Amino acid sequence: MAIKYEFIKECKQSGARLGRLHTPHGIIDTPTFMPVGTQATVKAMTPEELKDIDAQIILSNTYHLYLRPGHRLVEKAGGLHKFMNWDRPILTDSGGFQVFSLGDLRKITEEGVEFRSHLDGSKHFLSPEKAIEIENALGADIIMAFDECAPYPADRSYVKNSLERTTRWAKRCKEAHAKPDQQALFGIIQGGMYKDLREQSAKEIIELDFPGYAVGGLSVGEPKPLMYEVLDYTTPLMPKDKPRYLMGVGSPDCLIEGAIRGIDMFDCVLPTRIARNGTAMTSLGKVVIKNAKHVEDFTPLDPNCSCNTCKNYSKAYLRHLYKAEEILSARLVTYHNLYFLIELMRNVREAIRQDRLLDYRREFFEKYGYEI
Amino acid sequence: MAIKYEFIKECKQSGARLGRLHTPHGIIDTPTFMPVGTQATVKAMTPEELKDIDAQIILSNTYHLYLRPGHRLVEKAGGLHKFMNWDRPILTDSGGFQVFSLGDLRKITEEGVEFRSHLDGSKHFLSPEKAIEIENALGADIIMAFDECAPYPADRSYVKNSLERTTRWAKRCKEAHAKPDQQALFGIIQGGMYKDLREQSAKEIIELDFPGYAVGGLSVGEPKPLMYEVLDYTTPLMPKDKPRYLMGVGSPDCLIEGAIRGIDMFDCVLPTRIARNGTAMTSLGKVVIKNAKHVEDFTPLDPNCSCNTCKNYSKAYLRHLYKAEEILSARLVTYHNLYFLIELMRNVREAIRQDRLLDYRREFFEKYGYEI
Repeated sequence: MAIKYEFIKECKQSGARLGRLHTPHGIIDTPTFMPVGTQATVKAMTPEELKDIDAQIILSNTYHLYLRPGHRLVEKAGGLHKFMNWDRPILTDSGGFQVFSLGDLRKITEEGVEFRSHLDGSKHFLSPEKAIEIENALGADIIMAFDECAPYPADRSYVKNSLERTTRWAKRCKEAHAKPDQQALFGIIQGGMYKDLREQSAKEIIELDFPGYAVGGLSVGEPKPLMYEVLDYTTPLMPKDKPRYLMGVGSPDCLIEGAIRGIDMFDCVLPTRIARNGTAMTSLGKVVIKNAKHVEDFTPLDPNCSCNTCKNYSKAYLRHLYKAEEILSARLVTYHNLYFLIELMRNVREAIRQDRLLDYRREFFEKYGYEI
Repeated sequence: MAIKYEFIKECKQSGARLGRLHTPHGIIDTPTFMPVGTQATVKAMTPEELKDIDAQIILSNTYHLYLRPGHRLVEKAGGLHKFMNWDRPILTDSGGFQVFSLGDLRKITEEGVEFRSHLDGSKHFLSPEKAIEIENALGADIIMAFDECAPYPADRSYVKNSLERTTRWAKRCKEAHAKPDQQALFGIIQGGMYKDLREQSAKEIIELDFPGYAVGGLSVGEPKPLMYEVLDYTTPLMPKDKPRYLMGVGSPDCLIEGAIRGIDMFDCVLPTRIARNGTAMTSLGKVVIKNAKHVEDFTPLDPNCSCNTCKNYSKAYLRHLYKAEEILSARLVTYHNLYFLIELMRNVREAIRQDRLLDYRREFFEKYGYEI
């Protein structure tokens, strides 16, 4: 087995779990947030900086790396870890989500998905076997099965067909997986916003016996209460002795709510994307740095943060950098946002340890509000 | 006196000088290269990284900071050092060069220069008094007199009028300077490519008794041999007990040739600008990272470099980052280029110490070639 999930304890106030995930490239304390390094780099950050802020695992995207620079090139470089100079754990998605959201002219068949590259319009075909071949070449510690993430809203019959195909694809992924001892393949539970379909998908996927499971098909446009409702009935279906990953979720409120519902892993481009847009996540809610009110504000982004950005730079300076379109703007705000989420997860873990996660949520939201 | 130049020795093979410049924010070993932080940031770098690579002084631009965020804002922040979190020496130019090269619709009178902002077309007026007022507000350790940098080519009468106005403006700058004990005001020698006009300008400017002198009006499009010829007859006119600054020069060959001719300080956007364009300066000449030949090149940018970029990343990865338009591309190549020039100046100083700068030049060029 490539990974091992070590369950430490459950919070007495909620279904939140404290754990440790042992992987070939190190240990991850869970619940954890994974910064996204789409193109073999977490945008605007170096690996050293990711270590400074104690990122324990990052996610990278199979779809993007397949198209550019190509998985064979990465393999020749010695794998993704070596290529990008990151010696801690990596998770790769399967490309499924991007094929559906970025690829043009996609055509779904039982065999797989034909699509055109968003870069140059060239035609490509991704199947369970092909996705796993790419993920095997990239060499991440955790790899994801090739699935279909149904859109929201979608009618019941579409979602049912889609989740059943996802199950068949999951089986093919497992069979195609060439390195189960080095890379842990996670199955993905689909089923949209339908309780019985989530139950059906969970049953089918869990029967295939993967070393970890993800909840897919959430954070696709549905209201947050609906996402929480789906988690409420889905996570109890998932094995307690394996990690649970909620895909594509990264706002502070969703991280806390997800942890409360027993999720161990999260990823999202949100903190890095809004950072480049000049928006910071802070303990007092979001700060939009370009706003005129920050012109002469010589205080830090977040008075309660001790990251390098907050220790050394004022809102006035960050606003200047943003307005002047300086690269340092993206760097400093990205650094802060990732630090903020990783610190948040550290606080969540500590609250679980102390059986007070619901209290922590209340304290957090009293200051934070619900803006993001 | 705000600064003190400590002469250590002259190279026995050339007119190169080894020295130390003492400033309110620390000591600078000369000859030195100053990275350019146009808008209160050296593009793509943090102050911490500049310290990592041992940058001892940076340059920032009065024209840009005056227009955005405004010198009064920087002053309110506690000055430029505090605003940008850089506690080592800073030099600010006077804005003269940018008014002439970037400002639209400029109108030169004896009083000063009227111009329109390149940002929003708004009308502004810069005079010797105004430039010094701005530089006083910014608070750099070394500030430059407001001059006119004549274009190349320019006829003799234009250059003569221009240098004589520059002298009158230099006098007004000195009179306007409110903080001579905290900021050293340097005079600028003009005179284009005319020997007698350089002599006239040097005489007039040096008579005004500044704590340091710059050679302006070079690297404006003239052939390099002509620049060296001007230096050959200009630097011997400059006092030995004061620092000599060659403005706007930063290619490796020009740095060595300038040092040989007795220059102590250099600045240029070249290393940072070409870095963002994917071009690296290396001991073996320039490397254009986007070139197809680097696709599968897993060796570092420069096999003889021990910077973080060269220690940790391959050309193949850097090429991928560049093609994928990732911010990390600009970061890593900028870091390397600045490291390369600062290391070059360290080698130049060591060669002066050992009385072998001409030998060092030969050794350097044997590997480097003359491409940049």
